[in-house]
Amino acid sequence: MEQVQNKQIILKDYVNGFPKESDMLITSSTIHLSLPEGSNAVLLKNLYLSCDPYMRGRMSESKGSYVDSFTPGSPIEGLGVAKVVDSTHSNFKKGDLVWGGTRWEEYCIINDPQILFKIQDTDVPLSYYTGILGMPGMTAYVGFYEICAPKKGEYVFVSAAAGAVGQLVGQFAKLSGCYVVGSAGTKEKVDLLKSKFGFDEAFNYKEERDLEAALKRYFPDGIDIYFENVGGKMLEAVLPNMRFNGRISACGMISQYNEQGDGVRNLVHIVTKSLRMQGFIVSHYFPMYPKYMEMIMPLIKQGKICYIEDVVEGLESAPAALVGLFSGRNVGKQVVVVARE
Amino acid sequence: MEQVQNKQIILKDYVNGFPKESDMLITSSTIHLSLPEGSNAVLLKNLYLSCDPYMRGRMSESKGSYVDSFTPGSPIEGLGVAKVVDSTHSNFKKGDLVWGGTRWEEYCIINDPQILFKIQDTDVPLSYYTGILGMPGMTAYVGFYEICAPKKGEYVFVSAAAGAVGQLVGQFAKLSGCYVVGSAGTKEKVDLLKSKFGFDEAFNYKEERDLEAALKRYFPDGIDIYFENVGGKMLEAVLPNMRFNGRISACGMISQYNEQGDGVRNLVHIVTKSLRMQGFIVSHYFPMYPKYMEMIMPLIKQGKICYIEDVVEGLESAPAALVGLFSGRNVGKQVVVVARE
Repeated sequence: MEQVQNKQIILKDYVNGFPKESDMLITSSTIHLSLPEGSNAVLLKNLYLSCDPYMRGRMSESKGSYVDSFTPGSPIEGLGVAKVVDSTHSNFKKGDLVWGGTRWEEYCIINDPQILFKIQDTDVPLSYYTGILGMPGMTAYVGFYEICAPKKGEYVFVSAAAGAVGQLVGQFAKLSGCYVVGSAGTKEKVDLLKSKFGFDEAFNYKEERDLEAALKRYFPDGIDIYFENVGGKMLEAVLPNMRFNGRISACGMISQYNEQGDGVRNLVHIVTKSLRMQGFIVSHYFPMYPKYMEMIMPLIKQGKICYIEDVVEGLESAPAALVGLFSGRNVGKQVVVVARE
Repeated sequence: MEQVQNKQIILKDYVNGFPKESDMLITSSTIHLSLPEGSNAVLLKNLYLSCDPYMRGRMSESKGSYVDSFTPGSPIEGLGVAKVVDSTHSNFKKGDLVWGGTRWEEYCIINDPQILFKIQDTDVPLSYYTGILGMPGMTAYVGFYEICAPKKGEYVFVSAAAGAVGQLVGQFAKLSGCYVVGSAGTKEKVDLLKSKFGFDEAFNYKEERDLEAALKRYFPDGIDIYFENVGGKMLEAVLPNMRFNGRISACGMISQYNEQGDGVRNLVHIVTKSLRMQGFIVSHYFPMYPKYMEMIMPLIKQGKICYIEDVVEGLESAPAALVGLFSGRNVGKQVVVVARE
């Protein structure tokens, strides 16, 4: 029975505040490349791993969150693209490509493979299944179409607009005939928003002393839809700029994952302008995934939508890539290549 | 042509911070008790005037609010019950009883009587048309049934629960088979909630040092529905106690009408628990008024629902009554009797 080295990224202990690379440990164990008879599992070789902001919550000790905490001393869990090396589960066979819940190691055994989607279409970059064709894609789709119910001609604002989700929301908004403005934290990202993703306007929030005034400048008639990825001061600035019957898709609040920060003022606008602010857990919408694939795959193949990834090589680069999300280091979807085949 | 004295309550100037009685002036003018020929108006004799928290917004200079500011130097505008003294409008005739938009004076001319509802059923106290049968009743109905979509067995929390709207929401929740807890600011009100309105539990928020812990005590399994009347610190304490897929009807945020106060923390729970927080403008739902009347009138007549009013006598008592809303002085719906017939 073939036994190989298996590099792993271990969470040392629960994290407070901003995560650091030193909160994770690169180690190695050995693994047999075949499953014991009688098991009902799949053995995966990880190809691409996904770095996502929600993972920060799992680094803290769970307090009734919607996802379990990671287990200190064990590998980080996350989403990824993998190849089935061995399977004793009837739904999967050796050689299958899958995406879904995996762990930050080179090889891993999944005992509940119902968390894996089989990849049918390999005519696109496989890494896309960590992004546009995976959870972030579904997040943009559900958060924009289902939660915000956009209408042609509406005014849309997207924060963290160059990220894994934001870049898609902006493009969906344009496809829906909306006017869309995005914010991001570097000039490079702002340029991308306009030149690559087709946002009507974009600005660097770090260069605006008065966010409320900046939004007023870009939306003199107000905002119908705010796709919320950051929370905190940006939400506070958006609320007075919202229009009647505006919708806020509360997709994420990355500014508040590491430190609570000040409270948010201006919530009274929710009352006085009949706003709807709605959170959602994308996994609850996974039954819609085939419908999303039907929509998105032709758009990709016809070149009507594009997707930018920030790719780092090697499992050992994963801790820095994950930590970088919280300082906005990544440009586009943050992907870690563990192996290309 | 009969000419009479007409007592009026005038707003002196726009208000900053908490309103004071001295922001209003009691004065008197004269009025003819018949309308000029060729006009298309109604002349009202006001019977009951309504004091409502939303009126605070109209005392400030308008900044794109959903209601216009009052005009300094002119009578306060508000809702009330009145008798038609003269009419040159085809929909109304002398002797009709109406409720809707009027002004704080003994007699007033309404040039756009489409803002008035004709009162058909006088088998209940006429003052009820400022409360349970008027705007606050519709607010409770829309905010609870339409916005929160309650299900039997759900956990409901109501703030400002002894007010014009809250007392109804609590009773609607019990009629819907929910568990309901209310908060209020005096022992007298807390007692009323339990003894009169049938809340399962009630507490005095002023006596709780830790609101989040208090809510945890009353809702060990969390809150499905929060009927939000106050905002600020209460909202901040509610958010961590909300359950998955919880709904927050943002009816009012009285704590923030007079002073901005600190921002609200804990909004990240909107994301992590898939919460929906929704504001609404009750007047947009007025087409549902007949449907509400069909529901509420039998409940009143069968004694299945009750309504507490805080009644003061005389137009000259109106300024103190209005100001009292913002310190929680009123117990139940605040009504001003201008004339009984």
